[in-house]
Amino acid sequence: MFKQFQTDIKMSKDEYEKRLLELRTELIRTQYKFKDYKRPMILVLTGLDGAGKGDMVNALADVMDSRLLEVATFWQETDEEAERPYYFRFWNSMPMGGKLGVYFNGWYERTIRKYIDGDDTENIFLDKMKNAEKFEKMLALDGTVIVKAWAHISKKEQKKRHEKLANKFDNVPEITERANWYYAKYDKIVASAEMAYKTTHTEFAPWEIIDCSDKRYSQIRFLQIILDSMKKALEDKMPKGGTTPTDLITFPDVLGSTDLNKTAENYKDELKELVTDIKPLAWEAYEKGISSMLVFEGWDAAGKGGCIRRLLRAVDLRLSKVISIAAPTQEELSRHYLWRFWRQVPRAGYMSIFDRSWYGRVLVERIEGYAKPEEWFRSYDEINDFEEHLAERGVMLIKFFLHISSEEQLARFEQREDIPWKQHKITEEDYRNRDRTPEYIDAYNEMFFKTNTKNAPWVVIPANDKKYARLEVLKTVNKTLEKMLKI
Amino acid sequence: MFKQFQTDIKMSKDEYEKRLLELRTELIRTQYKFKDYKRPMILVLTGLDGAGKGDMVNALADVMDSRLLEVATFWQETDEEAERPYYFRFWNSMPMGGKLGVYFNGWYERTIRKYIDGDDTENIFLDKMKNAEKFEKMLALDGTVIVKAWAHISKKEQKKRHEKLANKFDNVPEITERANWYYAKYDKIVASAEMAYKTTHTEFAPWEIIDCSDKRYSQIRFLQIILDSMKKALEDKMPKGGTTPTDLITFPDVLGSTDLNKTAENYKDELKELVTDIKPLAWEAYEKGISSMLVFEGWDAAGKGGCIRRLLRAVDLRLSKVISIAAPTQEELSRHYLWRFWRQVPRAGYMSIFDRSWYGRVLVERIEGYAKPEEWFRSYDEINDFEEHLAERGVMLIKFFLHISSEEQLARFEQREDIPWKQHKITEEDYRNRDRTPEYIDAYNEMFFKTNTKNAPWVVIPANDKKYARLEVLKTVNKTLEKMLKI
Repeated sequence: MFKQFQTDIKMSKDEYEKRLLELRTELIRTQYKFKDYKRPMILVLTGLDGAGKGDMVNALADVMDSRLLEVATFWQETDEEAERPYYFRFWNSMPMGGKLGVYFNGWYERTIRKYIDGDDTENIFLDKMKNAEKFEKMLALDGTVIVKAWAHISKKEQKKRHEKLANKFDNVPEITERANWYYAKYDKIVASAEMAYKTTHTEFAPWEIIDCSDKRYSQIRFLQIILDSMKKALEDKMPKGGTTPTDLITFPDVLGSTDLNKTAENYKDELKELVTDIKPLAWEAYEKGISSMLVFEGWDAAGKGGCIRRLLRAVDLRLSKVISIAAPTQEELSRHYLWRFWRQVPRAGYMSIFDRSWYGRVLVERIEGYAKPEEWFRSYDEINDFEEHLAERGVMLIKFFLHISSEEQLARFEQREDIPWKQHKITEEDYRNRDRTPEYIDAYNEMFFKTNTKNAPWVVIPANDKKYARLEVLKTVNKTLEKMLKI
Repeated sequence: MFKQFQTDIKMSKDEYEKRLLELRTELIRTQYKFKDYKRPMILVLTGLDGAGKGDMVNALADVMDSRLLEVATFWQETDEEAERPYYFRFWNSMPMGGKLGVYFNGWYERTIRKYIDGDDTENIFLDKMKNAEKFEKMLALDGTVIVKAWAHISKKEQKKRHEKLANKFDNVPEITERANWYYAKYDKIVASAEMAYKTTHTEFAPWEIIDCSDKRYSQIRFLQIILDSMKKALEDKMPKGGTTPTDLITFPDVLGSTDLNKTAENYKDELKELVTDIKPLAWEAYEKGISSMLVFEGWDAAGKGGCIRRLLRAVDLRLSKVISIAAPTQEELSRHYLWRFWRQVPRAGYMSIFDRSWYGRVLVERIEGYAKPEEWFRSYDEINDFEEHLAERGVMLIKFFLHISSEEQLARFEQREDIPWKQHKITEEDYRNRDRTPEYIDAYNEMFFKTNTKNAPWVVIPANDKKYARLEVLKTVNKTLEKMLKI
């Protein structure tokens, strides 16, 4: 199939220089306009070894302002990366809005290689392609410009280049090993790449096959692809995903059916015992490289902070990190909203505790209108995908929702005003949020319904009695750790 | 010596709770004031195993707003960290201004351990203490609040706690191995820590020895130390380093004695040959884990970009990264100016190419008044230290200065206005900078004189002929790579 993209074009030096001159001027101008674009552009550059990908990127570096260009190569994972889900490194390398990120190999090369080397079955390969497609679509709907380029040469041409290269780099086993692999597996690689093409060539993230038989031609074409994609984005011709929610559906009332009258007995003793039980489990999880992410959501003043502090007595800050979600920074606003949460996926053995979380997208952002209806509406799926990536990598995820009654909340607000170290916690905004209680109930119920997955169920905790809630949280952590550690 | 810090204090529960209540209110208020402080506070927490450091930090987490608190533990280095100079991870964990960073173990524990285990001689240990002192002084003079706490217990007490702990964590070899080491080496550890104390207890970064025999007392004292240090900083009672430069000294005129009439012959052939020569060397350096940092400084329009682009033909963007230094971001401004350069120290085998660099401190920041005289004046030493850390880690560092005459500069400015893809490069500011030429000459000459070290000499390149300059840059890179690779 890729054969049909092969051409006989030979670009003369004069033609090359003429085209380069034109492209150069237009690219730099377009790049400066793109600087103010709200999202980055990601160009995945992959393809056959020896096709000249390095030269293509050099041609790009030659003409563009390097302050707006970032190049990332995805070779061997570092140990920090290997401890996280596969997509961690791709999120981590995401440029800010207005910049162009060139992703060498992208998320494709390793997947193709594992398939060809027999580490992955065809079904796994196809699953991974599905993941790639989802990832790309998610970013694209959010405004990121994604283009994928496959640098192609014929088998004959590869042989020629391979022989030339072999002598030149015999001092670098990594290069020669790689080149030999590509050389030996040409047919299989092309066949797999064609499968990747068929499954992931979408309107959101199209593939461009670049015939690299002629170096001049391939460089010009590469630059042209970038220019065209940037222009398309600037002219607002990007695909849009526009499903918006409807008001006609109601969701099961999870909160209404929660018994809020539960109270703790023997609080002190039980707490002490739980802390003593959890402590060694947390260290064992560290030892075994099991990481966890704990989400705390719930009404204002429901007692999230108090629960987290009790938990820290068992899983102290050497093993854990508390991430309190406040308004996003400029850096965060210029990327997909999940970016800042992906960056907080902990290393093997550590725990990240979220005081509010990515669910803000379908709660405060929905209700305050920070996210448009089609944006928060599609994020239930995005969130489920995110949590699936975590589960696949063996991350222990618990999502707590602390529920209190409206009366209890009011009582706590008033109390806070009298306690010196809590006064800073109560503002006008808290009272304003109270007026929105019915909207929050709707949002909560939809959230429970849509994100209560097998991998990541919600744990709703009755929290009118603070002590009861704290014990429940610790009990759940204890139980889940035991399960993960198979005790 | 630490013995004298041991006390018989037993704090009653009532006393503890009374003090905690007072501290809690005052700490949270002080923390909110500290939020607007221009620099972070770093608290190094180290000491004997079993002293209860985890509980102390938990007490802190209990009372402070977790959004303003960051805890970093410095255990085993990750492979990414091990590839950089030792201080890389401490720079990398630096919180933003207004936050408190607790550094578990800090830069001390590993140094003490290496000394005791015989990996380092006493001289090396003392050299490392010298480095610690310099690092702390540098940050403190810049406004960072640094306090170091040593958590102490008697040998008898440690034995008691060790026995209790041993059974509890026998499922976690890492903890028991560590505890056993501390237990077996008590005397040596205390003696080494006392040496560390004597050599690094300064007005800039004082040590506090916390007697941890009584847990309640130690927690209260820990909180008190943090409160006092924050208050001291807020009351502007931090030590200041005030040496300012004098105008009476002139420095050798390096630029004046440079022959600007050199021109290239056989440019095309030589360039091609150099690119062909360097390419495999760069890959060999990658293979062998040798990283490099290349600095490009010089007059506006001296041709830095052109040199870098030619270099990229040999060391392409898969192995290298171009870092163009523009105005610092908010994140960068809230930390020591070297922070953003430390973060760009490349991984093993990679090359970072700086289009302008940390020398901006003694050039544009000096001349435009962005840095106060005492600030830029002390940074020559800070820069030399930074480069020494790089050299010690085996980083190949080349500092290029591209020199052109004033007439040549003007001619290039005028030319730029006529070339479509260069128009964006010329602004009013460039002409304004020209008026400051004499000041720049002074600053350049002082920079050459003070930072032309054995580890990191300057390479001044006559660049009136662009082609000559490009060849010289590539020749230098070629030669230095050969030297590093011992070819």
